Amino acid sequence: MRIGFVGLGAIGMPMAARVAEGGHDLVVWNRTTTRSDALAASHPAIHVAATPRELAVGVEAVITCLSTSADLEAVLAGDEGLLAGMPEGALLVDCTSGDPTASRRIAAQLAGRGIGFADAPVSGGPPLARTGELTVMLGGRDVDVVRAREVVAPFAGTVIHLGEAGAAHAMKSVSNSLLAVNILALAEGLVALAKAGVAPRDAVDVINASSGRSFVSEVLVPQRVLTGSYPPLFRLALLEKDIGIAHELALTAETADPLLAHAREMYRRLRAELGEEADYMEPIRAAEQAAGVELRG
Amino acid sequence: MRIGFVGLGAIGMPMAARVAEGGHDLVVWNRTTTRSDALAASHPAIHVAATPRELAVGVEAVITCLSTSADLEAVLAGDEGLLAGMPEGALLVDCTSGDPTASRRIAAQLAGRGIGFADAPVSGGPPLARTGELTVMLGGRDVDVVRAREVVAPFAGTVIHLGEAGAAHAMKSVSNSLLAVNILALAEGLVALAKAGVAPRDAVDVINASSGRSFVSEVLVPQRVLTGSYPPLFRLALLEKDIGIAHELALTAETADPLLAHAREMYRRLRAELGEEADYMEPIRAAEQAAGVELRG
Amino acid sequence: MRIGFVGLGAIGMPMAARVAEGGHDLVVWNRTTTRSDALAASHPAIHVAATPRELAVGVEAVITCLSTSADLEAVLAGDEGLLAGMPEGALLVDCTSGDPTASRRIAAQLAGRGIGFADAPVSGGPPLARTGELTVMLGGRDVDVVRAREVVAPFAGTVIHLGEAGAAHAMKSVSNSLLAVNILALAEGLVALAKAGVAPRDAVDVINASSGRSFVSEVLVPQRVLTGSYPPLFRLALLEKDIGIAHELALTAETADPLLAHAREMYRRLRAELGEEADYMEPIRAAEQAAGVELRG
Amino acid sequence: MRIGFVGLGAIGMPMAARVAEGGHDLVVWNRTTTRSDALAASHPAIHVAATPRELAVGVEAVITCLSTSADLEAVLAGDEGLLAGMPEGALLVDCTSGDPTASRRIAAQLAGRGIGFADAPVSGGPPLARTGELTVMLGGRDVDVVRAREVVAPFAGTVIHLGEAGAAHAMKSVSNSLLAVNILALAEGLVALAKAGVAPRDAVDVINASSGRSFVSEVLVPQRVLTGSYPPLFRLALLEKDIGIAHELALTAETADPLLAHAREMYRRLRAELGEEADYMEPIRAAEQAAGVELRG
Repeated sequence: MRIGFVGLGAIGMPMAARVAEGGHDLVVWNRTTTRSDALAASHPAIHVAATPRELAVGVEAVITCLSTSADLEAVLAGDEGLLAGMPEGALLVDCTSGDPTASRRIAAQLAGRGIGFADAPVSGGPPLARTGELTVMLGGRDVDVVRAREVVAPFAGTVIHLGEAGAAHAMKSVSNSLLAVNILALAEGLVALAKAGVAPRDAVDVINASSGRSFVSEVLVPQRVLTGSYPPLFRLALLEKDIGIAHELALTAETADPLLAHAREMYRRLRAELGEEADYMEPIRAAEQAAGVELRG
Repeated sequence: MRIGFVGLGAIGMPMAARVAEGGHDLVVWNRTTTRSDALAASHPAIHVAATPRELAVGVEAVITCLSTSADLEAVLAGDEGLLAGMPEGALLVDCTSGDPTASRRIAAQLAGRGIGFADAPVSGGPPLARTGELTVMLGGRDVDVVRAREVVAPFAGTVIHLGEAGAAHAMKSVSNSLLAVNILALAEGLVALAKAGVAPRDAVDVINASSGRSFVSEVLVPQRVLTGSYPPLFRLALLEKDIGIAHELALTAETADPLLAHAREMYRRLRAELGEEADYMEPIRAAEQAAGVELRG
Repeated sequence: MRIGFVGLGAIGMPMAARVAEGGHDLVVWNRTTTRSDALAASHPAIHVAATPRELAVGVEAVITCLSTSADLEAVLAGDEGLLAGMPEGALLVDCTSGDPTASRRIAAQLAGRGIGFADAPVSGGPPLARTGELTVMLGGRDVDVVRAREVVAPFAGTVIHLGEAGAAHAMKSVSNSLLAVNILALAEGLVALAKAGVAPRDAVDVINASSGRSFVSEVLVPQRVLTGSYPPLFRLALLEKDIGIAHELALTAETADPLLAHAREMYRRLRAELGEEADYMEPIRAAEQAAGVELRG
Repeated sequence: MRIGFVGLGAIGMPMAARVAEGGHDLVVWNRTTTRSDALAASHPAIHVAATPRELAVGVEAVITCLSTSADLEAVLAGDEGLLAGMPEGALLVDCTSGDPTASRRIAAQLAGRGIGFADAPVSGGPPLARTGELTVMLGGRDVDVVRAREVVAPFAGTVIHLGEAGAAHAMKSVSNSLLAVNILALAEGLVALAKAGVAPRDAVDVINASSGRSFVSEVLVPQRVLTGSYPPLFRLALLEKDIGIAHELALTAETADPLLAHAREMYRRLRAELGEEADYMEPIRAAEQAAGVELRG
């Protein structure tokens, strides 16, 4: 299958490599060409397109893996945009952690041109992308999702069809919001305990033996906080975007979400204070600094 | 060792049984005598005391397992209270999920009479109490904690000494607060997704394959929410108390805790709305009802 | 001047009467015809149109006074909508407490047809509408605002031009949000004091002699709460909409608004609990009931 | 009457001067002696005591005007404390913006020694203290309040008896919380509007012609924000304390206060960020800086 891949970020890169290694005929485009050139250097069969339009000509499917749905809309539009090149009958598989409202709008726009759409955000991070074991959430019409399953197969471990277009983006925003809430709650709890004299390692061990445990306490805090390494892996700005999407989901669904709404405002402030490049675990370091303690152990 | 045990609630009962089965000479007292009589019926070696004072005469240690530190202070005081009977040199091991400030006050009061104190809240619930595998957090002076380890051994799997008197109660309040936050966040996220058409079971599966997972999403929601069983196991009122204690901890430590403070106010409202007997998972059912959806699957 | 007036609600009715009494040639339309018929009965010179389109034919200006910008968009659209009848060169003066984003969209749409637009929300309520002393906020291009001043003159005491299209709606949403915040804060403070034994009348007198005073404490609470009258005057649902608009304003401006965001979530919950028809002072009565006190005196 | 006065802060100073000018025999004590010496220099009839104990000997009443109830408890205690000198039958009139729980505890302690107590926080600031027109809130037993009225008469315009000991402190904390909430809400609303292009002076004018108006919008913002003067008049740290007291009041009364609880956490953060010496209007300046706008006009 001829597939286009747009967006070679930290996770897009290994996903694209998996697609190429899966025997597909792959064309890639990335805003900064150093990344597309690097990928092509290691995978000679990959073609690098000069523009999204050029990438789209003749493909059966395009995979997009961008920061936001607004980025996707920008890549679709214009004389050199994807839409100028995508043939009727093609499929857009959007692996961006996007916005369900935008996704429904895009799906309708594409449907008007005879192009299919599936939102397909992923979970698992670059390591599972490399091994082809990502969890892929799918939203869209059955007819599109059937084809999307084939497209994502090279990098997918588990694939779940969650509903109409946008449903997978809604799902991903909630999942990331739960992550976001646990980061804040652990930051607050651990610094208070540290100031009260409880060793951070002991606190984490107790939490992980109790009903308060989470992926954040079991994996992220031991690997990144207790070691003090705080590697920059995923931008806080994107997590702030995700929790904003989850809040919009609740507004649209007319359901109460006082905790998520509150956490979202906290992330808005953290994003403004820590900046666009800050890592998503930085709120814990900021809490350490505000309290004058270090969560090491 | 002669040990007194006060407070035969859902978890106190199997803990006391383990102590008796561990070869100690056990005297018990409970406010409602049906529970102490029932325990004695199944363990003939256990003595039932008529009052806390009577229980305390001649013991080496007393274990208390009550709802709140205020309950402990009530049991200690008065002509028929524990303090009227406890001999100098004895040890009070408080397994209540108590308040660190109260615990420090009690420790100081007992120290004035030559009685030791350790706060010793537990994690793991009745099933692990029965098998003697509870996690026991300990707070107190080294000299008291050494003795407390021996006292809790019959029901303890893991024992961690976290700091001075009150440190273990602080720890437990934070751990339960993390539990509390995950309950609220999952309630909000799952009902919004359900109204957006995502099947609850799919949503939970995705969360549990992602960085948003927690004990609540992995264990409690599948067992109690997706099944619709909602068994009454742990009172919401006690969880509200715990998150209140965690907030006081942050106030005392002068650390920021905007998320926990917010969650605490949400629990205050939920307690007022759902009542003193409501189970701690009821906020999820209340969210279902407010949204007009059922999280089953 | 021939003027159309759409929306004869509690405040639209006296505003329209002022316009007619000001010597203009007035055509009115209202979704429920009983109100337009009643107005025409008392003001024989007023014409009642059968549809928005019919109303719009030949006017120099149309005044709209609806619940939401979505209502305005509905009235504009369709074969029998305003846009089907409004002549090029006419002016739309929107007195709705609307949404700045929608207003900018509507202004652009009208500009494309050579029709001017000014957002013109009002403050002062039906009594000042009757006496022609409303405060009118104006947003729009200078050329439109000059004409809008003439249109609103019959019911305006003070007129302030605040900026481009949408600026007046932004202003109104913030002003109403301050109202909303004071209602909640007084509800919480007064019931806590009442339960602590402070007489509500004394509490209000002290607040009004202090730096805590507000329009709510000086006017609304004495007139409606201390008397227990709670007349239904302005729907809570509309105030919830307004604080939602103010929050969107802060999101768009990328400014922090943690207090307003929180109050907005409180109003979302109150709207869900108290219903679409509840008056905006009902949160105080709900607080009385939850606390088991009455704020009378 | 022989009266002692402890606490010559910004408002205590003119209050003490009024008492002396009212014909009473006045003894003063202040932690930093420069202020007591300055007062005595301008009022030769005033005696300066070396210690609280010395001040208290032979008085009929002592007025205290301190930062917190904890300060009062510190001044009462010890060999050179007030309690060591106050005669049986004397009256303590506490003008501190204190804590009702502490006040009840102090009242009970004093009652045990035959000394009366009234909490008597004031409203109106130094200007009204100078002219003897403060509003004085009184809490205490009738027998004490009758005498307290006479004691506060030299600086009181309006005197209101609100309930038992602590009631006046409760009242004052709520009144200041309403002030605190309006400061935050105006900060958020005005910077969002300014970024949307609305001139701050226009925004304030509209608010003050609407139901969103408050003492903050009518007096404080025009005098201190629109002018950019931000004079240091009242410490944010004390306002944070007050809203903390109001929140404790709600906790004790078991009433819901989600808005005040939230505002309290915001003030905790602001106090930590802006410091102990920051003025209570600084949150507005901080909001200006975060948004990159100036609210002048």
